Amino acid sequence: MIVSIKKGTDEAQISNLIEWLRSLNLEIHRSNGMYDTVLGLVGDTSRVDIDLISGLNIVANVARISEPYKSANRKFHPDDTVIDVGGHKIGGGNFQFIAGPCSVESPEQICSIANDIKAAGANLLRGGAFKPRTSPYAFQGMRAEGLELLREARKATGAPIVTEIMDLSHLPLFEDVDVIQVGARNMQNFELLKELGKTDKPILLKRGLAATMEELLMSAEYIMAGGNSKVMLCERGIRTFEHYTRNTMDISAIALLKEKTHLPIIADPSHAAGIARMVRPLALAAVAAGADGLMIEVHNDPAHALCDGPQALRPEEFKQIVGEVNAIREIINKF
Amino acid sequence: MIVSIKKGTDEAQISNLIEWLRSLNLEIHRSNGMYDTVLGLVGDTSRVDIDLISGLNIVANVARISEPYKSANRKFHPDDTVIDVGGHKIGGGNFQFIAGPCSVESPEQICSIANDIKAAGANLLRGGAFKPRTSPYAFQGMRAEGLELLREARKATGAPIVTEIMDLSHLPLFEDVDVIQVGARNMQNFELLKELGKTDKPILLKRGLAATMEELLMSAEYIMAGGNSKVMLCERGIRTFEHYTRNTMDISAIALLKEKTHLPIIADPSHAAGIARMVRPLALAAVAAGADGLMIEVHNDPAHALCDGPQALRPEEFKQIVGEVNAIREIINKF
Amino acid sequence: MIVSIKKGTDEAQISNLIEWLRSLNLEIHRSNGMYDTVLGLVGDTSRVDIDLISGLNIVANVARISEPYKSANRKFHPDDTVIDVGGHKIGGGNFQFIAGPCSVESPEQICSIANDIKAAGANLLRGGAFKPRTSPYAFQGMRAEGLELLREARKATGAPIVTEIMDLSHLPLFEDVDVIQVGARNMQNFELLKELGKTDKPILLKRGLAATMEELLMSAEYIMAGGNSKVMLCERGIRTFEHYTRNTMDISAIALLKEKTHLPIIADPSHAAGIARMVRPLALAAVAAGADGLMIEVHNDPAHALCDGPQALRPEEFKQIVGEVNAIREIINKF
Amino acid sequence: MIVSIKKGTDEAQISNLIEWLRSLNLEIHRSNGMYDTVLGLVGDTSRVDIDLISGLNIVANVARISEPYKSANRKFHPDDTVIDVGGHKIGGGNFQFIAGPCSVESPEQICSIANDIKAAGANLLRGGAFKPRTSPYAFQGMRAEGLELLREARKATGAPIVTEIMDLSHLPLFEDVDVIQVGARNMQNFELLKELGKTDKPILLKRGLAATMEELLMSAEYIMAGGNSKVMLCERGIRTFEHYTRNTMDISAIALLKEKTHLPIIADPSHAAGIARMVRPLALAAVAAGADGLMIEVHNDPAHALCDGPQALRPEEFKQIVGEVNAIREIINKF
Repeated sequence: MIVSIKKGTDEAQISNLIEWLRSLNLEIHRSNGMYDTVLGLVGDTSRVDIDLISGLNIVANVARISEPYKSANRKFHPDDTVIDVGGHKIGGGNFQFIAGPCSVESPEQICSIANDIKAAGANLLRGGAFKPRTSPYAFQGMRAEGLELLREARKATGAPIVTEIMDLSHLPLFEDVDVIQVGARNMQNFELLKELGKTDKPILLKRGLAATMEELLMSAEYIMAGGNSKVMLCERGIRTFEHYTRNTMDISAIALLKEKTHLPIIADPSHAAGIARMVRPLALAAVAAGADGLMIEVHNDPAHALCDGPQALRPEEFKQIVGEVNAIREIINKF
Repeated sequence: MIVSIKKGTDEAQISNLIEWLRSLNLEIHRSNGMYDTVLGLVGDTSRVDIDLISGLNIVANVARISEPYKSANRKFHPDDTVIDVGGHKIGGGNFQFIAGPCSVESPEQICSIANDIKAAGANLLRGGAFKPRTSPYAFQGMRAEGLELLREARKATGAPIVTEIMDLSHLPLFEDVDVIQVGARNMQNFELLKELGKTDKPILLKRGLAATMEELLMSAEYIMAGGNSKVMLCERGIRTFEHYTRNTMDISAIALLKEKTHLPIIADPSHAAGIARMVRPLALAAVAAGADGLMIEVHNDPAHALCDGPQALRPEEFKQIVGEVNAIREIINKF
Repeated sequence: MIVSIKKGTDEAQISNLIEWLRSLNLEIHRSNGMYDTVLGLVGDTSRVDIDLISGLNIVANVARISEPYKSANRKFHPDDTVIDVGGHKIGGGNFQFIAGPCSVESPEQICSIANDIKAAGANLLRGGAFKPRTSPYAFQGMRAEGLELLREARKATGAPIVTEIMDLSHLPLFEDVDVIQVGARNMQNFELLKELGKTDKPILLKRGLAATMEELLMSAEYIMAGGNSKVMLCERGIRTFEHYTRNTMDISAIALLKEKTHLPIIADPSHAAGIARMVRPLALAAVAAGADGLMIEVHNDPAHALCDGPQALRPEEFKQIVGEVNAIREIINKF
Repeated sequence: MIVSIKKGTDEAQISNLIEWLRSLNLEIHRSNGMYDTVLGLVGDTSRVDIDLISGLNIVANVARISEPYKSANRKFHPDDTVIDVGGHKIGGGNFQFIAGPCSVESPEQICSIANDIKAAGANLLRGGAFKPRTSPYAFQGMRAEGLELLREARKATGAPIVTEIMDLSHLPLFEDVDVIQVGARNMQNFELLKELGKTDKPILLKRGLAATMEELLMSAEYIMAGGNSKVMLCERGIRTFEHYTRNTMDISAIALLKEKTHLPIIADPSHAAGIARMVRPLALAAVAAGADGLMIEVHNDPAHALCDGPQALRPEEFKQIVGEVNAIREIINKF
């Protein structure tokens, strides 16, 4: 980390700062230029609070040279993390489809979709029981009852289940869930992340709407610092000025996160655009960019399609995408 | 709400949609143009899920004409809400300073600051017990012990206390807190908002980093829908492309929110820029734009200033701002 | 277009507004709700200034129902535009690679690259003669001399040339250029766009850093309104909060623009990330999402690679991408 | 500047890079850590292309320690620049109001407004002759004829005139203009900036919609590098996710730019929000934050108010703001 001191700063203040930085177990290299005094901090700077330092009155500028995340950093763990979910592997060259409805609605609905997505080529079943909604007047999900229906669908089909937790207090209800999803709005719910770090469940951590890749990795670090290293990162679209799509899928994040971290990267093309007919191009693009998995919303009941699905596909559409994805994966692995 | 249908859509699909919309208790006006069929939805559209409709394959476009929030809407409640905190009023022409340290650190620190800010003109004491930190390796606050110290400072000085809740499970610890603050990262923690709606505590709701004013109002709506209408909104800076400041204070939000809602608007110039020497200009600007209160970080111990205060002022600096703020308030009220 | 009037507005003011709107040749439908008066504007609203209306004191809200662009709108021109550049077609199922160096540097450099990219499968040669640079102290391109070298390279290889214009006053120098590129910073240089509309050159119009798709289409409309309909749109990355990449390629824009407009869509993966090793994943993703062409920076001189190429590939790397792109195009066309 | 090299990089490549950096007249300090090799670049790094270096395959990270702008940098020119426009000073404690209509429309209109704003307390007259419009179908200004009308208004009232240039080719028409305004969309029209640097006219440079303060300062640097140091910077709102306002005025930029540069800072509250009733709170806030001047749209013809003025005030409203601004300036200068 490099700390640049303001011109005209008192020597005593600089000494105070250096002394304090040394008390953090860092080695300090000082260089005096004509206009700037610059301090180089050597050692484990991941524990140094960059905001605190950059806000000091005597500091002109702080630049981090090494990443603030460690457990999630590929530099220290070069090999891909492979996560096993009920015998289905993700990461390290293993690819999975996670599919299912936006919301769990009834036993018939969820079991029928579970069968459909398995037949189409997906191994993992997703479905929302607790639903984060911007409006207090919107449907809030079936909650505990929805979790029960997911368990029944798993029993019937064998597909491990992936579902979102919305609050720490619900954690006991998720004991029997195979993958716990943390939604974009909870990406920096640090109390929740800490508790998930104490479990041994695979966690699917979604990127926040306005979060940088580094912030996503720092949130993964929260979970991993607690001892749970089974974290998958999920790119689901970021907020931009664009209005024609709900969010903007950050396709570079898929490729770049694979450089920065050893954790598997999943893409969620359904939420990224919020438009069903965009799911196919975004799914194919995500795979071409190197994603380790896709999470896709599928609905199965044409009569209820209206309510089910702004961003959901029918099973036959999903099946076509599975075929194209597999063909693209062969090409990018062949060259 | 106006729903524009795609050209070439099947008449049967349009009829299905109209029928479904009518089932939501809406009156539907249909107009057929040369290129577009447009549906006008009349009635209580605050309960209509705009994302769901805009994602339908037959829909080209949806535009909301009336606001999706009701309890927070000035249209339905023209008079300013006035919130009383221990005898100190906020809103409806009443202005308050909320001041104190970023983190509660010791009995001496918090009591000394509490005395200082009271002497300088602040009635309410703020202090962080639970701290949201991007890095799991950073100091996480004194937690329950910090709350205890705040209560002691209140006993000693009579100043009501304002402090942040980070998780629903901590709610019992906040029973004796005067104003519960919801941080920017929790602005859409809907489970937390719902529970706060069941209390009768004043809530200080901070705007999320990338949230629009409408989303902030919808989050207030979550609290108010539960029966608690004592909500203050807090502008604390939004994320933009700018690097020289940590966040960008949205000064227009202060003026515009006062049009849209009857709730008091507080500004937090300390977090908005993240730089102590920016607190004064931002505080004065916020007041000139019409804020009902200011929340400002103040530290009191020069020896520990290094750790305390990237964005904190010393008591004498705070006192000067109080004077200037009061003078500006006189001017804008006089004209 | 829907105009919602503020509650409490004087009847005379509403009548004035309606009268004025009628003078714009629009039919006005008025509906009076309990809280809102809403005006529906029917007719050619593309010539109505939405900012003007939304800023009126009596207006609460304006929503556009139909798009403000006409010539570029697929609704009015359902068939794909196909642009022929020296016998090489783009659009309507025809795909082209546009490749070459960031800057033209010498006759040897440009001719050697021109040969390399042709051998690798690209038909069109790009190269920068005029260079937009953030700093006045950075290299500003070879300018007129660079254009001359591009013409020589075309003579030697037969490849049509694509190069960027930076100012209207340079237009005479571009008479012999095959495709005139308008850079992101000039996307809203309206005087330039108007003049380009009077030429019959194919124009490659790059999306501005913070521009929406609609603004890009409105800029295309400027060119087309002048009579030149040979416009290609280019997605080259937008600015977001992300720091790990220079820009964020908006992959959905590629798919969605193809719905909204009949113009060909080109992707520029070199500028999107600003990192050479990201070009391959982004290029493959853009093609999987449906791009009609790719513009890629290629350098050829390992000794000078240092200066040439933060975002440039070597010819053999480019060749591999051409192979993968062609294989992916077969897959997405087959299904 | 600090360049961090990727782990595992070949020694020969590092040597090549060091050699090349030395050829740029920089001194290089190398330090080898366990995970990173870091190069410190000492010397005039304002001429170093940071994008080029950060894109190199062997580079993990680049951080600039000193600012890339020099002429505009307060570090090298501690005293405020004071610009004299027809005897009216701006900067260094001198404050000016620049007021007038959005567009020049007729001799009566512009002369009448010129008289009104002078009477209200403004010394400088603004008015648009060339108008940048998103849509080719919108009114494009009176152009050369509008400039002529501005000159007549100056003759009649003595008020120096401020008006926007849209293209380099129009420069001869601006010979008799007192302050040339560069609009937000042209902030990075580098060819235009270079030519303005060769004139000796005061330039009012508006910040681009998505530009950082540093980019604004780099654009000022383009003008100053040509020899013209009479540059005023103008904050006129940046694009954010907010929909309720057209743009978001960056109030911190006003205070922070005054630290970074010696150039005067003007605020444009009319364009920042795009709503007339927001002009007052934003104007007062900008002054409270330290602005050296305000540019405000004023219209004078109630009968044409409809077309004139989404963001314009009537003269009597403007006059009230002048009074409040002056009162606030006294307060902030007194303390």
